[in-house]
Amino acid sequence: MSTPNSRVPPGSDDDRAARVALTWLVEPGNRTVWSMVQSHGAPETVERLMRGAIPDGALQAAVLARAGDFDPRRMAEETLRRAAQLGARIVVPADDEWPRRVDSLAVLELDSPGHINLNVRPPLCLWVRGSWPLGDALERSVSVVGARAATGYGKQVTGDIAYGLAEHGWTVVSGGAFGIDAAAHRAALAAGGLTVAVLACGVDRPYPAGNAAMFERIAETGLLISEWPPSSEPLKHRFLIRNRVIAAATTGTVVVEAAARSGALQTMNRVLALGRPAMIVPGPVTSAMSVGCHELLRANPGATLVTGLPHVLETVGRMGEYYAEPARGPEHRRDALDEESALVLEAVPAKGAARPEELATRAGLALRTVLRRLSLLELAGLVERRDDGFALPRPSPDGSAGREATR
Amino acid sequence: MSTPNSRVPPGSDDDRAARVALTWLVEPGNRTVWSMVQSHGAPETVERLMRGAIPDGALQAAVLARAGDFDPRRMAEETLRRAAQLGARIVVPADDEWPRRVDSLAVLELDSPGHINLNVRPPLCLWVRGSWPLGDALERSVSVVGARAATGYGKQVTGDIAYGLAEHGWTVVSGGAFGIDAAAHRAALAAGGLTVAVLACGVDRPYPAGNAAMFERIAETGLLISEWPPSSEPLKHRFLIRNRVIAAATTGTVVVEAAARSGALQTMNRVLALGRPAMIVPGPVTSAMSVGCHELLRANPGATLVTGLPHVLETVGRMGEYYAEPARGPEHRRDALDEESALVLEAVPAKGAARPEELATRAGLALRTVLRRLSLLELAGLVERRDDGFALPRPSPDGSAGREATR
Repeated sequence: MSTPNSRVPPGSDDDRAARVALTWLVEPGNRTVWSMVQSHGAPETVERLMRGAIPDGALQAAVLARAGDFDPRRMAEETLRRAAQLGARIVVPADDEWPRRVDSLAVLELDSPGHINLNVRPPLCLWVRGSWPLGDALERSVSVVGARAATGYGKQVTGDIAYGLAEHGWTVVSGGAFGIDAAAHRAALAAGGLTVAVLACGVDRPYPAGNAAMFERIAETGLLISEWPPSSEPLKHRFLIRNRVIAAATTGTVVVEAAARSGALQTMNRVLALGRPAMIVPGPVTSAMSVGCHELLRANPGATLVTGLPHVLETVGRMGEYYAEPARGPEHRRDALDEESALVLEAVPAKGAARPEELATRAGLALRTVLRRLSLLELAGLVERRDDGFALPRPSPDGSAGREATR
Repeated sequence: MSTPNSRVPPGSDDDRAARVALTWLVEPGNRTVWSMVQSHGAPETVERLMRGAIPDGALQAAVLARAGDFDPRRMAEETLRRAAQLGARIVVPADDEWPRRVDSLAVLELDSPGHINLNVRPPLCLWVRGSWPLGDALERSVSVVGARAATGYGKQVTGDIAYGLAEHGWTVVSGGAFGIDAAAHRAALAAGGLTVAVLACGVDRPYPAGNAAMFERIAETGLLISEWPPSSEPLKHRFLIRNRVIAAATTGTVVVEAAARSGALQTMNRVLALGRPAMIVPGPVTSAMSVGCHELLRANPGATLVTGLPHVLETVGRMGEYYAEPARGPEHRRDALDEESALVLEAVPAKGAARPEELATRAGLALRTVLRRLSLLELAGLVERRDDGFALPRPSPDGSAGREATR
């Protein structure tokens, strides 16, 4: 760690270790700690907390009680070493793969001052298991959340929506719980899509254990992420702290079933406060599992009633910051590309195919960026995947190009 | 009928007969005919139509084709005689019992100019079977409408809402159809409440015949009403014309189940255009019978999602023009009374009971007005019904009065 007078560059080993120490000392999202990190950097913040040099007495007492005889620097180093053995990495705001949307929590203001609203600021770091770059995985993503005690109806509707989102190239984000969350993850996996579980415990011990096989599949093809260091327990209050990340990291959020006063309602209040699309699936008024959904729709003119995938795509499609709606022909689709996608597309040879590694070299981009862009370009019908790499689609007899014409 | 130069007093026999003739010559709600009646009176309008002296050529041709060799004056007299034999009466705007709310159709403007929107003006007259004064019956009323092909879910929810409305002294209005309409009428009857069926055919032959026993019960305890003269057939387009009366005659309207592009949606568009409470019950997104309800909620920020009786009472309670929400004690309830109710209450003797006829004399009000007010006052716990008439509630031991204390 640094001394008080030396600022440590963000993203350095010291910065990472300090952020790990901070999430071990104080629950993530803490307003005071986050502000101190913004002003003084993470290492300096650790020093001040350990020295007892902060004005917030309650926070100071909690930190010292938590630290006890432990040295936070050594704890952090030990945690980072263990995480590496487990195949988990830490991502901090200075990293390319940091998911920028979560930083909008920096200015989130909530009406009710309740205890849990103290923990509403952006994450200091995120632990990740899985190989996709985190930011890319969340770029076009939709949260699908709801009741643990979901009904058959809720799980069916969730499955339809999540499967369709994955088919359309959207990452499905949820909390890994039983019920709606698991139905969302499983449908995305079944569609061969990308899914991200945002956990309220360590990524080495995803909760609940009953979903262990599902979590392994998510770690293999998608991502398990958490603000808490490996081996952290899923304490009850952590789910509410976690929910703000589900709300802030994605383009929009769908709630499928929710009982009165459930956690999904709190997630949706975050979504609404952030001005993101808040999509609610109604249900039978005779079902206790839809009471919360109907409450949300009655209380929030800004919430959108959705009855299935078309409404969800219509809603989040409007928000697409990086990717336009499918247009009429390949020329229109090309025009709508972001710069990186355009570079990748230009690198694809006019005849024959090229492997992603070659394309990365030609385009001057990182391999992971190229992989992500290729996946989107393929969905848009602008490239096609072959045994020997990626190629432009073969023109159809009438001169147009596109997946319709070539498959 | 009158000559062109003599204005006939509204409500006179000539006025009544002319209105009957007009609804026989032209479908109700016609903009041109209604405006002519406003300007020149009903008898003069009949004369002009029969003389071929109106500028609207299409309307003129339709009238003459319809009239054929018949004399509209004789048709009207015959119809009025037949109606009297059937126990049906005609109510016109000049009558005390005319339901004033329907006159708000005079200024209704709709976005879509479709054919059926030509028939959107107030009724010229209403045929009534049943003994309640029409205006009183509709004073505190809620329409409950929806799909004919209702599901068990829809009928259950309808029954709960309609039964509760009747228990709370609200008249339940619907269209007499199978499905949601019938469930609403039957629940109101089961609760011993008042229910009104607004028909698209003659009140002597309520449609559908499968609901005949229900219609007989409604005629005995509530009202069957229609704009069309006795023996008129339930032609398809008449249901759409009829719907504007359901929308305009009541405090608010609840749609429980509706398929895409159903008649209930058209009713609700009228309700919204009139600025009345438009209450929609959601359902499973997997049910075709809820598609229309969800469409309405998505398309109309002014529509209110309701999940049951409490939401409906909360919504229409706010609109109560004649009657306040139950307040905390009898004094508060008295303060909230309209003038007629206050007169009736003042006429009730401090000791003993009085019969409605005596109360009518003392209050200087019509007997039917007194009967209606007594019913409301009894619901509010401000009077109680005894074998020898109506009396003030006996004070309870703690000095308060009210139905809780006296029953």
